[in-house]
Parts: sequence; C-alpha cells; structure tokens
Amino acid sequence: MTTPPPAAELLLREAVRLADAALELTLPAADAWPARLHQAMRYSVFAGGKRLRPALVLAGCRAVGGSYAACAPALAAVELLHTYTLVHDDLPAMDDDDLRRGRPTCHKAFDEATAILAGDALQTLAFEALAEISGEAVRVLARAAGSRGVVGGQQEDIDAEGSPVDASPACRARLERIHRGKTAALIRASVEIGGLSGGATPAQRAALVAYGEAIGLAFQVADDVLDATADAATLGKTPGKDAEQGKLTYVAVHGLTAARAEAERLLAEALVALVPLGAAAEPLAALGRFVVQRDR
Amino acid sequence: MTTPPPAAELLLREAVRLADAALELTLPAADAWPARLHQAMRYSVFAGGKRLRPALVLAGCRAVGGSYAACAPALAAVELLHTYTLVHDDLPAMDDDDLRRGRPTCHKAFDEATAILAGDALQTLAFEALAEISGEAVRVLARAAGSRGVVGGQQEDIDAEGSPVDASPACRARLERIHRGKTAALIRASVEIGGLSGGATPAQRAALVAYGEAIGLAFQVADDVLDATADAATLGKTPGKDAEQGKLTYVAVHGLTAARAEAERLLAEALVALVPLGAAAEPLAALGRFVVQRDR
Repeated sequence: MTTPPPAAELLLREAVRLADAALELTLPAADAWPARLHQAMRYSVFAGGKRLRPALVLAGCRAVGGSYAACAPALAAVELLHTYTLVHDDLPAMDDDDLRRGRPTCHKAFDEATAILAGDALQTLAFEALAEISGEAVRVLARAAGSRGVVGGQQEDIDAEGSPVDASPACRARLERIHRGKTAALIRASVEIGGLSGGATPAQRAALVAYGEAIGLAFQVADDVLDATADAATLGKTPGKDAEQGKLTYVAVHGLTAARAEAERLLAEALVALVPLGAAAEPLAALGRFVVQRDR
Repeated sequence: MTTPPPAAELLLREAVRLADAALELTLPAADAWPARLHQAMRYSVFAGGKRLRPALVLAGCRAVGGSYAACAPALAAVELLHTYTLVHDDLPAMDDDDLRRGRPTCHKAFDEATAILAGDALQTLAFEALAEISGEAVRVLARAAGSRGVVGGQQEDIDAEGSPVDASPACRARLERIHRGKTAALIRASVEIGGLSGGATPAQRAALVAYGEAIGLAFQVADDVLDATADAATLGKTPGKDAEQGKLTYVAVHGLTAARAEAERLLAEALVALVPLGAAAEPLAALGRFVVQRDR
C-alpha cells in the first residue's frame, strides 16, 4: 500500500475542516437540553473520522460546477447518517464493539439506551439538514440508508453470522448484497447528493452514480484487504478481526490476490465513468485512487 | 370515561383504512430482500394501532381544504415514525417490554438486532415517504422527532428513572419536558404536516400548531389518567405499570383530580385555537374530544 496521492490528502483535509464546521453548526450545543443525549451525539461525531463521505459530496458538487456553499448542509448530513450507523452497529446486540478509533464506543462511554437514542437522533438530524438541499436529496439519502440499502446490508451481515464462508455462488451473492448495502449505497449517495447540490444535469448525475457505485464497492474490498494485511498501529483498530469472527469478506470468499485485483478493476471502472465530466472531476478521481490505495 | 363521539370514531375508522393503504404501498413486500427485516417492519406497523396520528394528518389537511390525495404519503410517514419509536422504546436497554397491544414486541418476536434495525429502517422510510410532500414537511417532522423532540423526551424519561417523584418544581418542569418531547411533538407535527399537505396559509398553520400542541399534551395527560384508572381488558395493556415502575406521570406529580382538570383545560385551549378555521375544522375538534375522553 502506498501513501495517498497529495491531491486526495489535500481534499480530505479540506473536507475535514468544512464538514466539521457544518457539523458544528448543525449539532445542538453539548449543554442544550437534553445534555446527555447531545454529548453522546457529539462524542460520536467528533471522533476523528476521515470524513470521506463529505469529501465525496464536496468533490461531486464541484465536479458539476457547484460551490461549497451549495452543498454545506449535505456535508453534515452524510456524516451524521454514517455516524448513526456506526453507533448502532457497535451495540451489544449487533457487533458488540468496545472500541472505535481507539476510544470507547458510544454505549461504553455513555450507556446502551443513550447510544440507541443518540443514533436515532443522528439519523433524524441528517434528514433535517438534507431538507435544506431538496426533497430529491432526501429521497436519495433515504433510499440508500434504508431497508434496501445500509440497514438491509447490516441485517444480511447479521443473518450471515455462523454460516459457512466459502467460494460458493450463494456466498458470493450474499457478499455482494452486503457490500452493496452496508457500504456502497451511502458512498454512492454521497457523490450523487453532491451532484444534486451543485445542479447536476441528468447525464452528469448518471456519471456520478456510476462512479460512486464502483468506488463504494472498491472501498469495502479495500477494507477487507486492509483487515487481512495491515498491522494494528497503521490501521487504528485490531486487524484480523474479520477472519477471527468468521465474517463474510471479499478476502475470505475470493482470496487476497483476487481481492486486490477486484479493487483495481473497480477503480478503473470508476475512473472511466468520470470521463464525461472532464477536468472538474479530477478530485473525484484522486479520491477514488485514495480509496483503493489507502493504508488506513 | 365515555364512548368516543361517533364523529371521531368514523374519522378514525377512515384513517385506519387510508393509512393502512398508504402504508401497504410504502412498505417493501414481506418477501423482498432482506425478508427478515421487512417482516419485522410489517409486523410492527400492522399491529392494530389506532392510527391517531394519520387521522390528525387527514383532519389537518381537510381543515385547510386539502384532499386525501394531497396527504397520502404523510399518513404513512407519521405512522412509520411513531412505530419506530415504539419498537426502540420496547428494547431491553430501554423500557424492556415483552408485550405491545397484546402481542410479543418486535425484539421478542424476532431478535434484538433485527428490532434495532427494523426501527432504524422505519425511521428512514418515514422521511423517504415525506419527501414526496415537501422539504418543509421533512423539516417539520425531523424537528419534532429528533433530539429536541421525541428522542429528547425519551432520553429525559430514561434519565429520570430512579429519581424521586413528587410535586416539586423540578419534577413538574421535567414532566412537562418529557410530555412535550415524547408525545406532544409528534402529534403537533402530524397536524402541521396535514396542513402543509393541504396548502395551509401561515395563519392556518399557526392555528393548527396551537391546536396540535394542546392536544398532544392532553393526549399524554389522558394516557397517564388511563394508566392509573382503567382495567386491563379495556386498556389492552397492563394498567398501573407507571406507578409500579416509579414513572414520572402527570397523575404521580399532580394527582388524579388535577390531571383530569388539566386534560379538559388543554382540550378547551385546543378548541379555541380551531375557531379561525371554521366548520372545516370540526373533525379536528371531534378528534380532540376523543383524545381526552377515550377509554383506551
């Protein structure tokens, strides 16, 4: 794995700054009623995330000629939605994780009821923020986040627990459904919402969706590769956990060599999709390369 | 407690029929991927609820001259949102209830992870449906449902567990925050969203909000009275549970006589708010009387 290209690093740094400003404006103050809930929401949101999804919103908006001002509420919305899914995924009844990004998870730092409610309220706030963009943006996020997207992927992931992991067609199909739902849906929606904020034409929107779908799948394949190969210090979490838990991953089903090849193939597919957008899509291309070549 | 007036009964019967049709159109089929999740969502939604919130949307829409067609997606949206809060409130980490409306709660009929995810996806679907009405309707529901509304009220309710329940100013203030958040916020938003669907003027909208706020508070006070006085067969759930759990209720803080007087006072306030809307608001008035005088 190589160092991310400077273009992506710069964009990600900018996205952290802009997304954090938008989140600060969107989230109620930590001492506003009910304080414990708002503290739990802020604790989970300001936990040192990469802000990849806001970066994709920003780059998607700029790829069609839009500015930061046009997409600011959407930067907050996609990160709020993403954070809610992490808070709920970490719950004892779900993945039962004690640590996230080196800190206690929300239900460990607060309590289980507060973590459930903080996740619920983060999802609500995502839609409140996105309503500032348009009803169509709300629809795009809701379709990606709901039972046929993120939540559906998580349900299938949980349903799959304890099932044999092999290279059978059933496992391959299930793996693809999990990846499309759990990860790719929200990444694709982030790019699409960026485009909508920036006033994308139908053709531009279709190009962004094709790019987002490929990059979303590539992200999860690369994640599976990282879990199988990286060391804990670089990754910031315990590697090898997927294999230990018998999780259905791309590496477990297809092997490491095939996983690396698939990530590169998806990247190529994403870059081809960007061609009609011209030079304005260069930041999206840089983010795509980062997604596949990152080491964390 | 008397039988509900016929006008309210007729409207509630109509709301059940129309809301169930809208919900059937909105919810994915029980065998659509991921089937277990969609089964849990449908199990919770089609559980014999009164559909009071859809009835308030419908009556609010008609009070400003709108038709069923104008508000159909909103009928589904408010009931989906309400159902998600019930599914999450029943979880072991929250109120830990095994029965709801005489049937096993979602986490008992399925499992805890599925119940968390079903609640999550029901919330998402509420916003997807409401985006068909307008961005403003999404904003109204999100503000009512989020950390300063429904979720905030539930958080304070949980934070209050184990605290002494008395008539002190601190208890009174806390009780009002819980009632405003947990119950009144969504009832008020339902009426307001009905009005928005029907094209309410700003003055009509203000009247609907004032009515909705008063009826929302009256609903919870009446609920507290029912829990303290009704028998199990009429109520459809175990009465006396609030007192047993040391819950902060209007009856516990102010006493039964004061609770009954407060419900009637709030009803009068709600009916006064409807005056500017004229005869078109008669169904809302009937629903208001039902809310205070119901026996279930």
